[in-house]
Amino acid sequence: MAESSTNPVPPPAQAPAESPSAEGGEDSASISKKAAKKAEAKAKKEAEKARRAAERAAAATASSAAAQAEDLAKDNYGQETHETKFSTDAVEINLKTLNDEHLGKKVELRAWIQNARMQGAKMAFVELREEGNWAIQGVIAASPEGTPVSRQMVKWVGAINPESFVVVEGTVQKPLEPVKSCRVSNYELHITKCFIHAAAPAMLGMTLAAANRPIANFSDEEVPVEQGVEKLSIASASEATGTPAASMLTHLDNIVMHKRSAVQQAIADIRSEMKELFRSYLRSHGFKEFEPPCLIGAASEGGANVFRLPYFEKEAYLAQSPQFYKQMEIAGGRKRVFSIGPVFRAENSNTPRHMTEFTGLDMEMEIKRDYREVLHMLEGVLLHIFRNIKERCADEIALVRSVYPSEDFLLPEPGKEVRLTFAEGQKLLREEGPEEYRNVSDDEDMSTPQEKALGALIRKKYNTDFYTLDKFPEGARPFYAKEDPTNRKVTNAYDLFMRGQEICSGGQRINDPVELEARIRTKGLDPGSPGLKEYVDVFRQAGVPAHGGGGIGLDRVVAWYLNLPSVHLAAYYPRTPKRLLP
Amino acid sequence: MAESSTNPVPPPAQAPAESPSAEGGEDSASISKKAAKKAEAKAKKEAEKARRAAERAAAATASSAAAQAEDLAKDNYGQETHETKFSTDAVEINLKTLNDEHLGKKVELRAWIQNARMQGAKMAFVELREEGNWAIQGVIAASPEGTPVSRQMVKWVGAINPESFVVVEGTVQKPLEPVKSCRVSNYELHITKCFIHAAAPAMLGMTLAAANRPIANFSDEEVPVEQGVEKLSIASASEATGTPAASMLTHLDNIVMHKRSAVQQAIADIRSEMKELFRSYLRSHGFKEFEPPCLIGAASEGGANVFRLPYFEKEAYLAQSPQFYKQMEIAGGRKRVFSIGPVFRAENSNTPRHMTEFTGLDMEMEIKRDYREVLHMLEGVLLHIFRNIKERCADEIALVRSVYPSEDFLLPEPGKEVRLTFAEGQKLLREEGPEEYRNVSDDEDMSTPQEKALGALIRKKYNTDFYTLDKFPEGARPFYAKEDPTNRKVTNAYDLFMRGQEICSGGQRINDPVELEARIRTKGLDPGSPGLKEYVDVFRQAGVPAHGGGGIGLDRVVAWYLNLPSVHLAAYYPRTPKRLLP
Repeated sequence: MAESSTNPVPPPAQAPAESPSAEGGEDSASISKKAAKKAEAKAKKEAEKARRAAERAAAATASSAAAQAEDLAKDNYGQETHETKFSTDAVEINLKTLNDEHLGKKVELRAWIQNARMQGAKMAFVELREEGNWAIQGVIAASPEGTPVSRQMVKWVGAINPESFVVVEGTVQKPLEPVKSCRVSNYELHITKCFIHAAAPAMLGMTLAAANRPIANFSDEEVPVEQGVEKLSIASASEATGTPAASMLTHLDNIVMHKRSAVQQAIADIRSEMKELFRSYLRSHGFKEFEPPCLIGAASEGGANVFRLPYFEKEAYLAQSPQFYKQMEIAGGRKRVFSIGPVFRAENSNTPRHMTEFTGLDMEMEIKRDYREVLHMLEGVLLHIFRNIKERCADEIALVRSVYPSEDFLLPEPGKEVRLTFAEGQKLLREEGPEEYRNVSDDEDMSTPQEKALGALIRKKYNTDFYTLDKFPEGARPFYAKEDPTNRKVTNAYDLFMRGQEICSGGQRINDPVELEARIRTKGLDPGSPGLKEYVDVFRQAGVPAHGGGGIGLDRVVAWYLNLPSVHLAAYYPRTPKRLLP
Repeated sequence: MAESSTNPVPPPAQAPAESPSAEGGEDSASISKKAAKKAEAKAKKEAEKARRAAERAAAATASSAAAQAEDLAKDNYGQETHETKFSTDAVEINLKTLNDEHLGKKVELRAWIQNARMQGAKMAFVELREEGNWAIQGVIAASPEGTPVSRQMVKWVGAINPESFVVVEGTVQKPLEPVKSCRVSNYELHITKCFIHAAAPAMLGMTLAAANRPIANFSDEEVPVEQGVEKLSIASASEATGTPAASMLTHLDNIVMHKRSAVQQAIADIRSEMKELFRSYLRSHGFKEFEPPCLIGAASEGGANVFRLPYFEKEAYLAQSPQFYKQMEIAGGRKRVFSIGPVFRAENSNTPRHMTEFTGLDMEMEIKRDYREVLHMLEGVLLHIFRNIKERCADEIALVRSVYPSEDFLLPEPGKEVRLTFAEGQKLLREEGPEEYRNVSDDEDMSTPQEKALGALIRKKYNTDFYTLDKFPEGARPFYAKEDPTNRKVTNAYDLFMRGQEICSGGQRINDPVELEARIRTKGLDPGSPGLKEYVDVFRQAGVPAHGGGGIGLDRVVAWYLNLPSVHLAAYYPRTPKRLLP
């Protein structure tokens, strides 16, 4: 569909402008011999030059004449324009659904050339990729009579720049032996027409092979030592295959090739299915989706790490969590709600675990008898995701593992979910953890390395990578966390973990305004301050039932499930303190 | 679950503190007789007073003694605490699924008291609401033997403040005649236990009845005359019922009651189902969901109406549309993508049609042969939404109409979608439109009143409220719109309309970097400027197939489908230049 004014149609019998010419010789190496032989050499060289020029001129005349007179295939290839004629009787195919019924049929395929090579002068092979890693081998061979395929056409097709988008016609055939290099191994496409729909440059900023390698470094960020070690070992493993791995920076600067890589498409598919599993599970359990605002009028949680912006005559903030709005939905008469959307943290953390914008999967529900109803729902939805993703995305998971190796994500058997209290977790760490991580305090949260060490202990002891720590100490939770009425040192709040890393925080909220106001004061905050006042007022407007909820970081769930070296690989467009592009 | 430290448990046999006492007589009318009879009257009065005081004292002693000795129901009501005991054999019910199998059974219901009234001294009626407008009539009558229900208990229940949340036990019975005031009309609940879980204040900021009335004015905004007229007529119609209507400001200041209203819950349900219908239709057509970023590094469309914010050492912008990111997904090898998420406009428009944050339903797809493939997909998904919502949300639509009257939304018959070119639309308006709107220009977009007038003409002529204007003039579309290769005055771009108002803009995009750069220059922009440069570069990275897409404003679809007086009613938390709360 490119147009002639800005993208003139090349004569069909000519290779794409940017591709290296496969024709003609080159001048000899530059003259660098000693002075004595200089004159002789020069004379020889110029003679040779003249001879070659004469040859070329003759060849060009012959070839030009041949092209005019003999290229009987000239209408079957070239740059596509809006006037290009395609066969009306060709069946459009889709590589995923290609089957024996297509054998011998005339078909049309729209695809990227991911590889093209000549096999002698009369035949070329091209790999045609549709989406993800779905590719088929295309074969083009010159017909003895010069039509539908001429030698010129074969040469032209064999020289198409990789990652150009083409429209191809041909017939589906069985290959002599299964094609190892393509996902479609039991069919090949015998090409009779080929048009370039959109050309790629001769030199890609990053090749597909490089894009499919594990990322070697995340250099625009300070990588903490522990993750750095993980990444280096992966990077060196990959280098064994010869294609050099690129940095995250190179990937983001070449976003198109980054996204075309099979590994990124597989990650994107897994992410999108996980989101759908979250949504469908909650919908089937009576949850209603709603949308909290991103622009808010007050920094409700004290104002740390919050983005501020001028908003007409006022100031606005970007929401760090939809929690207060989820609670407002419950106060407003909803029994169960969920939301999926962006949340923002203005935290200057340059690690592979942090981003400034990420996707929150949030839910909130009325509690009938026990705060654990919420915990069980959170466990339920996550287990639903983990159990189903394994089947729905088996191919994609295998593909990601071929680039980023990982062990199977261990799940508890149904009914045997691992739920330790925070105190029990600390006891385990104190008694059986590595010496350097045993120093845990009763009323403070653990450090990330301590959590990871505990995760390893739990994996060993309970054979699961997914578990809960319940009853967090009062001091480790925010003002809205409901205290356990039978033991005020702890709260009805919990964290859920994957491979020793927190992916979900939740619990029961205080629903009584008097109790809430008292807790806000206890925490040293002012219940009359902007944001907090409006929050407490919600519970004064009318009676609000007991409720609780949790927030899950989608990016982390994807990254930790696949054991990716950075959460940035799980995001579509990762946002970090140093990076807002692409 | 409220706790004693901050919310002391009241003695069970006492009415909630804020409720008016239903007990005891009153002093006689004030003395205003003439002087002559003053002394006599006074003497009489004081004697009477003394007599009554003596009576009251005796009654109080007796009643207090009775309360201590005789309130055999005292464990069956009061403020709920974490120590409150409920029956373990009661079946939890849900009003939506209540059926004859529950008749005579002991059940438990958690609900809001939406109305309570005494019927004599021994009986009270309460309306118990679960969610939306699902309510059942509760009946409580004193048992002759004082247990399980005493007179004190009846009085206490009959005096509970509306919008308090209660836990009730009782048996399901058939009422003598259908209960007209409740949605559950063929059952009633005979209450034997009742605990206040969370009390509402004695005086609500807005009653449920007021919240269910159509909103009378949108006073923190300047309402254009045309909409003002619509709204006034609705408002006055509503006032016939006696309950005064509240302003949008009052609604937002009383967000809890606003959301508890049946009409807002119905709108929320319709919105959430429309979103789900959009998603499921596109998924079933091979579209993959992705998430574009909100924080972006450059204001890509020239910087007008864009929110800016400090971002560490840089500046960031809030995305006005996910379009460039959708295109990047296509460039990155996806065939079809969609996204659902917030978009932002820093436009100081204070009208019922505008918000600064709203929800975009966006899609983008590869084009195989014709740009209309995208148009048909957009029509397809919208028709899917309109046809299915009518069945899925029939009750909710009827409920909304009972508050905001509207005519049926007319749809074209399958296969008879109305698609006029922009030029045809203008011709229709010029030839048959109202005199004042006939003055349309060939290469400029129409004004909102002109569009509405055209919508009325199309409704009359084609019997549909949903239609497309295609082939917009080049001058009315942005730089990325693909020109019609056979007529460069127009573009392969279109708008979709509901009741004469645009709800979706879409079309084919330029996919050739040379053509794109030329168009950017033609539009007087600099292809090397921040944002535009990165955009054009995407198409230089590798060959990108022809593609197109469209963006639908969810808030507007909901509002215009239901003919609401303002798009703010369709949003969960409307954001306007003057309002960031709640």
